[in-house]
Amino acid sequence: MTHPPRLIIAQVEPEIDEGRFPIKRTIGEEVLVRATIFADGHDKIAAVVRYRHVAGYGLQASGYGTRETDYGLQASGYSLPEQRSLDPAARFPEARSLQPEAWHEVTMKSLGNDRWEASFRVAALGRYEYTIDAWIDRRATWEDEVSKKKAAGQDVSSELLEGVILKRELAREEARLKPGTTTAGQVPTQVEVRSGAATYERTLTVWVERERARCGAWYEMFPRSAGLDPTRSATFDEAAARLPAIAAMGFDVLYLPPIHPIARTSRKGRNNSLAAEPNDPGSPWAIGSDAGGHTAVEPALGTIDDFDRFVAAARAHGLEIALDIAFQASPDHPWVREHPEWFRHRPDGSIKYAENPPKKYQDIYPFNFESPDWESLWRALLGILRFWIDHGVRIFRVDNPHTKPLRFWEWVIREIRSTHLDVILLSEAFTRPAVMKYLAKLGFTQSYTYFTWRNTKRELVDYFTELTETQMREYFRPNLFANTPDILHAYLQNGGRPAFQVRLVLAATLGASYGIYSGFELCENRAAAPGSEEYFDSEKYQIVHRDWDRPGHIKDLVQAVNRIRNENPALQFSWPLAFHETDNDQLMFYSRKTPDDSNALMIVVNLDPDHVQHGWVKAPLYDWHLPLGHEFIVRDLLSGEAYRWRGEWNYVRLDPTERVAHILRMEKE
Amino acid sequence: MTHPPRLIIAQVEPEIDEGRFPIKRTIGEEVLVRATIFADGHDKIAAVVRYRHVAGYGLQASGYGTRETDYGLQASGYSLPEQRSLDPAARFPEARSLQPEAWHEVTMKSLGNDRWEASFRVAALGRYEYTIDAWIDRRATWEDEVSKKKAAGQDVSSELLEGVILKRELAREEARLKPGTTTAGQVPTQVEVRSGAATYERTLTVWVERERARCGAWYEMFPRSAGLDPTRSATFDEAAARLPAIAAMGFDVLYLPPIHPIARTSRKGRNNSLAAEPNDPGSPWAIGSDAGGHTAVEPALGTIDDFDRFVAAARAHGLEIALDIAFQASPDHPWVREHPEWFRHRPDGSIKYAENPPKKYQDIYPFNFESPDWESLWRALLGILRFWIDHGVRIFRVDNPHTKPLRFWEWVIREIRSTHLDVILLSEAFTRPAVMKYLAKLGFTQSYTYFTWRNTKRELVDYFTELTETQMREYFRPNLFANTPDILHAYLQNGGRPAFQVRLVLAATLGASYGIYSGFELCENRAAAPGSEEYFDSEKYQIVHRDWDRPGHIKDLVQAVNRIRNENPALQFSWPLAFHETDNDQLMFYSRKTPDDSNALMIVVNLDPDHVQHGWVKAPLYDWHLPLGHEFIVRDLLSGEAYRWRGEWNYVRLDPTERVAHILRMEKE
Repeated sequence: MTHPPRLIIAQVEPEIDEGRFPIKRTIGEEVLVRATIFADGHDKIAAVVRYRHVAGYGLQASGYGTRETDYGLQASGYSLPEQRSLDPAARFPEARSLQPEAWHEVTMKSLGNDRWEASFRVAALGRYEYTIDAWIDRRATWEDEVSKKKAAGQDVSSELLEGVILKRELAREEARLKPGTTTAGQVPTQVEVRSGAATYERTLTVWVERERARCGAWYEMFPRSAGLDPTRSATFDEAAARLPAIAAMGFDVLYLPPIHPIARTSRKGRNNSLAAEPNDPGSPWAIGSDAGGHTAVEPALGTIDDFDRFVAAARAHGLEIALDIAFQASPDHPWVREHPEWFRHRPDGSIKYAENPPKKYQDIYPFNFESPDWESLWRALLGILRFWIDHGVRIFRVDNPHTKPLRFWEWVIREIRSTHLDVILLSEAFTRPAVMKYLAKLGFTQSYTYFTWRNTKRELVDYFTELTETQMREYFRPNLFANTPDILHAYLQNGGRPAFQVRLVLAATLGASYGIYSGFELCENRAAAPGSEEYFDSEKYQIVHRDWDRPGHIKDLVQAVNRIRNENPALQFSWPLAFHETDNDQLMFYSRKTPDDSNALMIVVNLDPDHVQHGWVKAPLYDWHLPLGHEFIVRDLLSGEAYRWRGEWNYVRLDPTERVAHILRMEKE
Repeated sequence: MTHPPRLIIAQVEPEIDEGRFPIKRTIGEEVLVRATIFADGHDKIAAVVRYRHVAGYGLQASGYGTRETDYGLQASGYSLPEQRSLDPAARFPEARSLQPEAWHEVTMKSLGNDRWEASFRVAALGRYEYTIDAWIDRRATWEDEVSKKKAAGQDVSSELLEGVILKRELAREEARLKPGTTTAGQVPTQVEVRSGAATYERTLTVWVERERARCGAWYEMFPRSAGLDPTRSATFDEAAARLPAIAAMGFDVLYLPPIHPIARTSRKGRNNSLAAEPNDPGSPWAIGSDAGGHTAVEPALGTIDDFDRFVAAARAHGLEIALDIAFQASPDHPWVREHPEWFRHRPDGSIKYAENPPKKYQDIYPFNFESPDWESLWRALLGILRFWIDHGVRIFRVDNPHTKPLRFWEWVIREIRSTHLDVILLSEAFTRPAVMKYLAKLGFTQSYTYFTWRNTKRELVDYFTELTETQMREYFRPNLFANTPDILHAYLQNGGRPAFQVRLVLAATLGASYGIYSGFELCENRAAAPGSEEYFDSEKYQIVHRDWDRPGHIKDLVQAVNRIRNENPALQFSWPLAFHETDNDQLMFYSRKTPDDSNALMIVVNLDPDHVQHGWVKAPLYDWHLPLGHEFIVRDLLSGEAYRWRGEWNYVRLDPTERVAHILRMEKE
């Protein structure tokens, strides 16, 4: 019996909740692993990060504890009984059985004080695993002892004899490990004999997604508003006419609110009125009519074939479609009749509509995820996702996930990923931090944020420091929406065109993923009422017909910002992000870099939409390893103008009637 | 099949390394548990901390992962095969089979933002377990809904009907849980029906020790120096004559360096010289001669019976004996002959002595914990501890534990605790933070610290903030030694009598456990050489004969400080500790409180032993919930003098020729 390993491996980073959840990366990104590693005494130690790719999600029961079995779900996660979905279209081949690759390894280097680090690059979609091995490096220990004694002029004849014996032992162990590869005559140098190696007690996980999971510019539109006739819903074919303009602005993702049949019963009218006029189209979130439910298309938009054609047309313009997933039903949803057991009921037998007392949402029936028949409901909801995946959709914006059980999402996302490694899910949870973080941990690719409500310099610096400098950056990918159909912030209501410019530049340069809801580029800023963040004549309840060339639009700025994002990889990563000093609290100054330092930008924004602001900003010469007296040219990628800067502190003046920001790149001299 | 629990329980505190290690408490202390608890949606939730006492250590395999079995040790920790020890005296009855008590529980209260807390008190020695249950509180959710709707003037007739149904359901579940206790006719109020409750995925552990584990004043002495004849070692009976004086100074623990037979071979002479004179007594850490090894007594001190009598005499004076445990052997140790396999060997067959190249320690043979026969060595070392436990010793100061395998300590401490819940082990590891912390986590009761080398205000504030305001306070109990036979800091060498007074007050009031090595009270400050922290004529290598009434001694201050410690429970806890502002960096000002606020002190120390320092200090009126203009009397418990203080900022002047500190208690008016 060999003695227990002398090595201790602890405080491993990144590690989310003791390895309960994966960290997130996209293809080509690095994973920098750090750990505290030590042994008793003074022996030299060596350590490696081991990692391997596991093609599919291939959940192992051990990674998720045994508690799941407490409520009778299978050990392989929350997978439900064999028939995956009620929807025949949703049966997909399984990826679970794929074999993991062999382990690779990378040598860790000491950072001092028992901290060690190494990094590896993820090169394929799906799951990677990583862990750490460490052992006493007997050869290095011996060399260290001999060299110290020699330096002190001591006799090392006994130590040299020990070296011969050590060499022989290491060669023997090495021969046992890799027959035929021993090097005779010297202490092995490249050979690592790891007797007594310790392995970190957990195997940690990286979930690797495609690049769009990390970065992209999103544009939200109601296709029904995209026609030429303001009195009726546009069809998908008509809406396709908008695609070239949206593509020209430089967007990557076109996100559509629900496209399903809209209920008649309890339909909301203009400005959320309880009584709809006959021509009012209703809220797309009141899903379901006798034309179908979540797997059907609103007849006014067209057919499923029309949708397929729209997806293809968007793709032809470089736009990927994101669909809204709102797991709730209208009173007219087919499931209300077919599956009354999936809803909650009042004592009089009627189905309970949604409430947040004293507010009532008569047009929405929430599902009862705790129904005795919850398993068939969960499978049916999975089936909805699989249906749209089958129609080419790979991005879903999930409506209010925080009002559905968290373990439902964990299960359904895992199920999707067991067959599709390219599906992106954006969590629209505007709620408390713990819940938003947990949704991100359990599997949502990206998350809406508090960005919309962070408008002062202090608010922005604090929030983005949390997002990019804490463990959150390993699992919470922010998608910064400057507005949504639900949120027209007072800053936009009151700040006029410059406010829209400011928020656009901030969203597009503070995060790798950002979005606007259509009308933003026209600086639409009329609220439903004083103090409200709702839009007046909200598109949620009516067709909104717009003049896309209306004077005062900021389409050129949108286009320029998206072009700069595409040309500068520094803006395609959410971190690193560094904030720098200014002598004016209305001037925000920050820099963005690629992880490999190959591209870097400095951004100055005047947060005050109403006044000229000027002052001095401190360039990160020290952080960028440049002489503090450096003299250099910065070019504003928005205007094309160049400025000569000298040393750290430089003068900036931003007049919001002309421009609100500089996006600066240092010119190579 | 019921649906998975909707509750998430996470970020539980205190929790050390995912529950791998226990937190530490002494009898009567509270454990304040906090957790992040939430569910989807807006339902009301309820949570309890559950806890129970498990009389013995009763390690469960599940709490420690499965990795231990990798190297063939038993699943119940690191327990070795049946025969526990080579020493017949070391066979003790097992406590492992004791049954745990039933679970108790305490309701958690919401702190907002999904944080919850509750505390429980530990009332017995040994192991406590705690975990958390949380569930949807259906009654509270219903009440909240009804009250909000009533407040909005809405019709609640349907909700009242729902209440009747809910009442019936809850009563039915309740009846199932506790037949015969249902209350008919109303929604149960006190009854908690916890359908769908979630339980935190880990059961965490508290290790509860006796009070001495938390606080005590230690005095270190070499009994051989305690006689009247300076030319020979005193016996235990002679040393007993010192006990009244030590007890009179107010100490609780009397710590003795190793008392075992001292080697002749390679014996060190005065001032660590390589050649000992015939009368030189040798270092007590060179353990073993033909008179025996670690379970024998140095003949010059007496016999094992003399030792037993000394222990009893000390106890009669209120002093508990702490023994030094140094797991190393001299060349004359019986095990060198009996168990050469427990040591490392040179190619020429000789045993390797200790080295830290280029330093050589020819009088010390380290054990080879990795020997092929490591199991019998480990058992023999356990046997040494059991031998002294059998002789009434319950406190061990462990010499250099960081040079022996960490997993050895984890195993041996667990073995000791499986039979004795009252054993205290002090870790003497002066090494890197990660290793010191790990030794504390794995089971050492207390730890030596960097206190000796923290002398400026900034150093002290930073270090004690780490010790008392981070997770360290849950597992790392500092024992602040002002000096040791190895460490006479330059501050003491150069600062004269006031420096000793300063360090005494700091040690005794910054931590609940502190110690001095004899001679400190005489302000002995002569170093072996400039730049050395070794004592001149170090007692490690010779008998040191002292005049205990030498002019300039600070015995009165020692006695006063220990009296104040005994009279003020605020000084019997290492935390809470708060530092307060002063306008003079040489003036340190801090306050101590009991956890229940029943006793509080403010301490001002002049860190400058050479000059009068004066200035303003800011009393913690705000923290203590007193009006900022409060006028009050503070009494100096050292001098008995009283001062009138007004408001937060008050003037202090400390002349080191008179006094170096105030220990102030607010007088009740």
